[in-house]
Amino acid sequence: MIGIGIFGASGYTGHELVRILSGHPQAEVRFATSETYAGATLADLYAAAPALPLISAEEAPLEGIDLAFCCLPHMASMPLVQDLHGAHVPTVDLSADFRLDSAAAYHRWYKAEHTAAELLAEAVYGLPELNRAAIQKAKLVANPGCYPTSVLLALAPVLRERLLAEPRAIVDAKSGVSGAGRNLSLTTHFVEANENFSPYTIDHTHRHISEMEQEAEKLGGERVHVTFVPHLLPVSRGILCTIYVRTAKALEAEEWVSLYRQSYADERFVQILAAGRLATLHHVVYTNRCVISLTPVEGTDTLIIVSCIDNLVKGASGQAVQNMNLMLGLDEHLGLV
Amino acid sequence: MIGIGIFGASGYTGHELVRILSGHPQAEVRFATSETYAGATLADLYAAAPALPLISAEEAPLEGIDLAFCCLPHMASMPLVQDLHGAHVPTVDLSADFRLDSAAAYHRWYKAEHTAAELLAEAVYGLPELNRAAIQKAKLVANPGCYPTSVLLALAPVLRERLLAEPRAIVDAKSGVSGAGRNLSLTTHFVEANENFSPYTIDHTHRHISEMEQEAEKLGGERVHVTFVPHLLPVSRGILCTIYVRTAKALEAEEWVSLYRQSYADERFVQILAAGRLATLHHVVYTNRCVISLTPVEGTDTLIIVSCIDNLVKGASGQAVQNMNLMLGLDEHLGLV
Amino acid sequence: MIGIGIFGASGYTGHELVRILSGHPQAEVRFATSETYAGATLADLYAAAPALPLISAEEAPLEGIDLAFCCLPHMASMPLVQDLHGAHVPTVDLSADFRLDSAAAYHRWYKAEHTAAELLAEAVYGLPELNRAAIQKAKLVANPGCYPTSVLLALAPVLRERLLAEPRAIVDAKSGVSGAGRNLSLTTHFVEANENFSPYTIDHTHRHISEMEQEAEKLGGERVHVTFVPHLLPVSRGILCTIYVRTAKALEAEEWVSLYRQSYADERFVQILAAGRLATLHHVVYTNRCVISLTPVEGTDTLIIVSCIDNLVKGASGQAVQNMNLMLGLDEHLGLV
Amino acid sequence: MIGIGIFGASGYTGHELVRILSGHPQAEVRFATSETYAGATLADLYAAAPALPLISAEEAPLEGIDLAFCCLPHMASMPLVQDLHGAHVPTVDLSADFRLDSAAAYHRWYKAEHTAAELLAEAVYGLPELNRAAIQKAKLVANPGCYPTSVLLALAPVLRERLLAEPRAIVDAKSGVSGAGRNLSLTTHFVEANENFSPYTIDHTHRHISEMEQEAEKLGGERVHVTFVPHLLPVSRGILCTIYVRTAKALEAEEWVSLYRQSYADERFVQILAAGRLATLHHVVYTNRCVISLTPVEGTDTLIIVSCIDNLVKGASGQAVQNMNLMLGLDEHLGLV
Repeated sequence: MIGIGIFGASGYTGHELVRILSGHPQAEVRFATSETYAGATLADLYAAAPALPLISAEEAPLEGIDLAFCCLPHMASMPLVQDLHGAHVPTVDLSADFRLDSAAAYHRWYKAEHTAAELLAEAVYGLPELNRAAIQKAKLVANPGCYPTSVLLALAPVLRERLLAEPRAIVDAKSGVSGAGRNLSLTTHFVEANENFSPYTIDHTHRHISEMEQEAEKLGGERVHVTFVPHLLPVSRGILCTIYVRTAKALEAEEWVSLYRQSYADERFVQILAAGRLATLHHVVYTNRCVISLTPVEGTDTLIIVSCIDNLVKGASGQAVQNMNLMLGLDEHLGLV
Repeated sequence: MIGIGIFGASGYTGHELVRILSGHPQAEVRFATSETYAGATLADLYAAAPALPLISAEEAPLEGIDLAFCCLPHMASMPLVQDLHGAHVPTVDLSADFRLDSAAAYHRWYKAEHTAAELLAEAVYGLPELNRAAIQKAKLVANPGCYPTSVLLALAPVLRERLLAEPRAIVDAKSGVSGAGRNLSLTTHFVEANENFSPYTIDHTHRHISEMEQEAEKLGGERVHVTFVPHLLPVSRGILCTIYVRTAKALEAEEWVSLYRQSYADERFVQILAAGRLATLHHVVYTNRCVISLTPVEGTDTLIIVSCIDNLVKGASGQAVQNMNLMLGLDEHLGLV
Repeated sequence: MIGIGIFGASGYTGHELVRILSGHPQAEVRFATSETYAGATLADLYAAAPALPLISAEEAPLEGIDLAFCCLPHMASMPLVQDLHGAHVPTVDLSADFRLDSAAAYHRWYKAEHTAAELLAEAVYGLPELNRAAIQKAKLVANPGCYPTSVLLALAPVLRERLLAEPRAIVDAKSGVSGAGRNLSLTTHFVEANENFSPYTIDHTHRHISEMEQEAEKLGGERVHVTFVPHLLPVSRGILCTIYVRTAKALEAEEWVSLYRQSYADERFVQILAAGRLATLHHVVYTNRCVISLTPVEGTDTLIIVSCIDNLVKGASGQAVQNMNLMLGLDEHLGLV
Repeated sequence: MIGIGIFGASGYTGHELVRILSGHPQAEVRFATSETYAGATLADLYAAAPALPLISAEEAPLEGIDLAFCCLPHMASMPLVQDLHGAHVPTVDLSADFRLDSAAAYHRWYKAEHTAAELLAEAVYGLPELNRAAIQKAKLVANPGCYPTSVLLALAPVLRERLLAEPRAIVDAKSGVSGAGRNLSLTTHFVEANENFSPYTIDHTHRHISEMEQEAEKLGGERVHVTFVPHLLPVSRGILCTIYVRTAKALEAEEWVSLYRQSYADERFVQILAAGRLATLHHVVYTNRCVISLTPVEGTDTLIIVSCIDNLVKGASGQAVQNMNLMLGLDEHLGLV
């Protein structure tokens, strides 16, 4: 069995990692850390969790593991990843700390100094369907943000084929509340979120835009402006992005479907729906899949791409396990639905 | 007291009319009809409703009322409205039958022959904030659709001021499930809608587009293409439309707010939020208000307009009562919150 | 117009008071206080609220009001109520501080010393249907807890008629999340409460038991043990209590209904459903009503009483306004649905 | 691989079986039937389902399967189970048709003649934790109802140990909406169930009472009256039963826990919570577990047992797979979480 350590296991992504790994036939969690809850077990925090002891990061026995997952907040990940790198422990970092290519970009979006900039060149952006070869060789994988995962998988085929009529995309995004984390805030209070629906940070300041625009430029060879408009959805899990782009070619729905299916041939976790079908949250929750539908708007050059994922699975912990499988040379789909 | 008759009271809009009118100081419901449930009372159908007897439309004593509301499905409204017209009963029709200006347009969108085309010229589109004078003199008011109410109030100021850079709007709309009516369907089954979020009829075939484009053209003097993309939201009530337009002028958020506030000065039911605030469902549910926020996207010509209403109140029965108040010369706000 | 002051307006009951009073034809809010949010307006805290300025309690102009509502937490109410008493301001206190008859009982249940015990004898338990005459003459009304309101209205007829076979009641109670207040806690985090259902403090320690047992004894002349088992329901509003008692008489459903209807004849806010109908949350939310259904279990001596209220209306702010109306000699139903 | 046939795959339990079996390492679905949807695939009906073709029952190739699951409505199961019996196909029937021991009892509760009474003696009640040995040898297993599973596991220890002070139990049960099936009804319309909570069939007529009382009598040696009061909960999945019994012995919480843990030693799917913890839906949804908490009410002889399951897993399809594993000599836990 492959030994796994989880740093920062008390949040939703940590809990989800434990859930997914409990069904993985070749990996087992050797330890899980939490500074706040050290001494308790994960079952004290989550009704459905096993009684996994939570220890302080200091006590974590690095020698017993083959790979580490870091589920810490941004900034807190940097020193830990440096330590793991020093100890030669392959690492999947679920924070934002190693997703951007430069310390300057990090500073621009996160308003803070990057203190582990020397590792940025080594870190690989962990979106397997777009970056598999690099992930297989990586020692440090930056697991993508939930929104960028959904958006980049949706845009990759049109970007690669240079099919945009203008370098812009409007992304009207909707996310379940677990995307906001387990920290307490009025926004995530049941009475405030229930029977409500609300946009937030729609003024081009959401930090996930940095990832989307960075990776979109690599895919398409030119800078793309993403008008990103997230909304909070009164469900626990799931992201649905409705994406509007103007395309250089006027294709029929069936042609778009066929182009996307070719682009994602052999990808088990990306599903392109037949023309006329529309992606929904129920296609993806509790799975590692990204489900995409394509609808050209007749009489215009607009293509509507709907892209859905489970923010905690393909948008976080499932994709992290997919990256782990690749880094360790295992079957990429092990433990994932 | 003003006597009111409600035709088709068993659906959500009929029930909501009864609820709103029960708080109206000068109107009282004299009868309510339902073909399916004639003989029962509204309390048999709705837990919170009064024991209002439901009678067959045939038995309805037209002579006892000063105004009729028709809450029948489209096509079913036509003969009834003809009868009411013949009997000189002022009528607010909540169906789609008298919203379009021509029988040809009706045929194009509803795929059916209009059988009361002679009344189309007389029918007034009942959006009071845009059409008050005509409503005050009307005998037949076509109550607007829920989505068009939200979208037209959001677009009117930019249309009137000729501020669109191109004659297009993208409307990413989200509606609570009551918008789909009380008829049974898998779409509205609790387990199918709960913890889900799904787009529908996004291929420019949703019938509300016809109203939006017709009225937008009147406001702006040119044909506007509306890319309308509705989604089903797992809440009971409320519509939030996120609208993307390209504008000819680059204004600051505060300038947009001030332009809109001028445009809606003295309108009690339209609220323009201060710059930086964003409209949400909680602003509007159980009220007759339309709440709008304005966010220009820096570095682009895009303006994001978020517009919220309660689909059953300002999107249907509340607006119907507002129209009734105008038609009967009452204070427009009576009975409305 | 009657002038009203609200102390502690930033919580759910304060906000609900403002909402209800905005529709009251003879009362108007002269000031609203909040220590935490002094300087802001209520609209900064609640999307649908008016821009009512929040001031510190110290600045509150007592001379401008005819009645005060206190919506402070227990213990915090005591000194304020003493001040209001000293200033001869009629007061409805929504906290638990003046509900119990003795400082000893308060100490037993709230584990704290009562610091305004001299006012306990004067305070009237504000359940109008059971205590109207005393409320009309009171200067200080202790507004009942939400659960006790629902349970006492359900039990009063059997208690008064001495119909219990044994002095016990099992109350299986379910409450929406607003009952837990607006303070942040993991319990009220959307992801923890959504798609969940959970019992809490079921070991006879819930403080509302003290009120129920105290008032039940007054009604029935003997001590009644209430096995009170509350659960958190994933809805925003509403309480449904399923109550099991053993009765000394075996009556048919219709007889129970008729006994209860006699008991509550002329009570506009208590509705006894016909035999065979069952009370639900949809009967009561957003109303000041208590709806009760009665089901004897054939072949046993068990009577099942289902009692529903809106915890924020009849369970708090609506009942507080009902008490205000009585104290000020107004029509009891003014401003209430 | 073991070949499986599913009859009646279009409902929630059929879909759930497909979901669970897709993760079973030794079983594969060879065919799935649906009369209504023959010709379509399961993916046409459920967003997350695989494209499993649905065929008519007539075309089902019985020779290719080692075991059949019947997910038909009651009455419809009888002739099919007769056919499967004739063809010597081991069968797990998820309907109610073979749960009662006699045709007379069936007639009493289901108001219909049993047409396959000759198989009743052979059918084994499929609650593995109570009936494992018989299931292992059975050719026909009647999969228990969801409520009875939850209630019988909760009561078995006190029944077996003869610890009831009187032969009665009050079961205040709450179920998610999937328990009502996928058929359309006003009860399951989103707007009617959402933000609502409602009791139903509480007058001792719910058919699951027959199973509970029948099996409780076998466990405890005397007839037990179950006052069963189900409520509809606005969640998709999960059952929580709050059970009130009077016990002959006054034990401390810890003693009850220890008694129950002994009773369920080695049962992987039954979890008894430590004293002070309370069972919730989040303990069990998407798992095959039954989680139970025990709270004696101080000063009384009442024990409160809270018992939770996922109605679609341990309450239906998960338990069916557990039964399949036992019948086929596989590890009982295969494919189950």
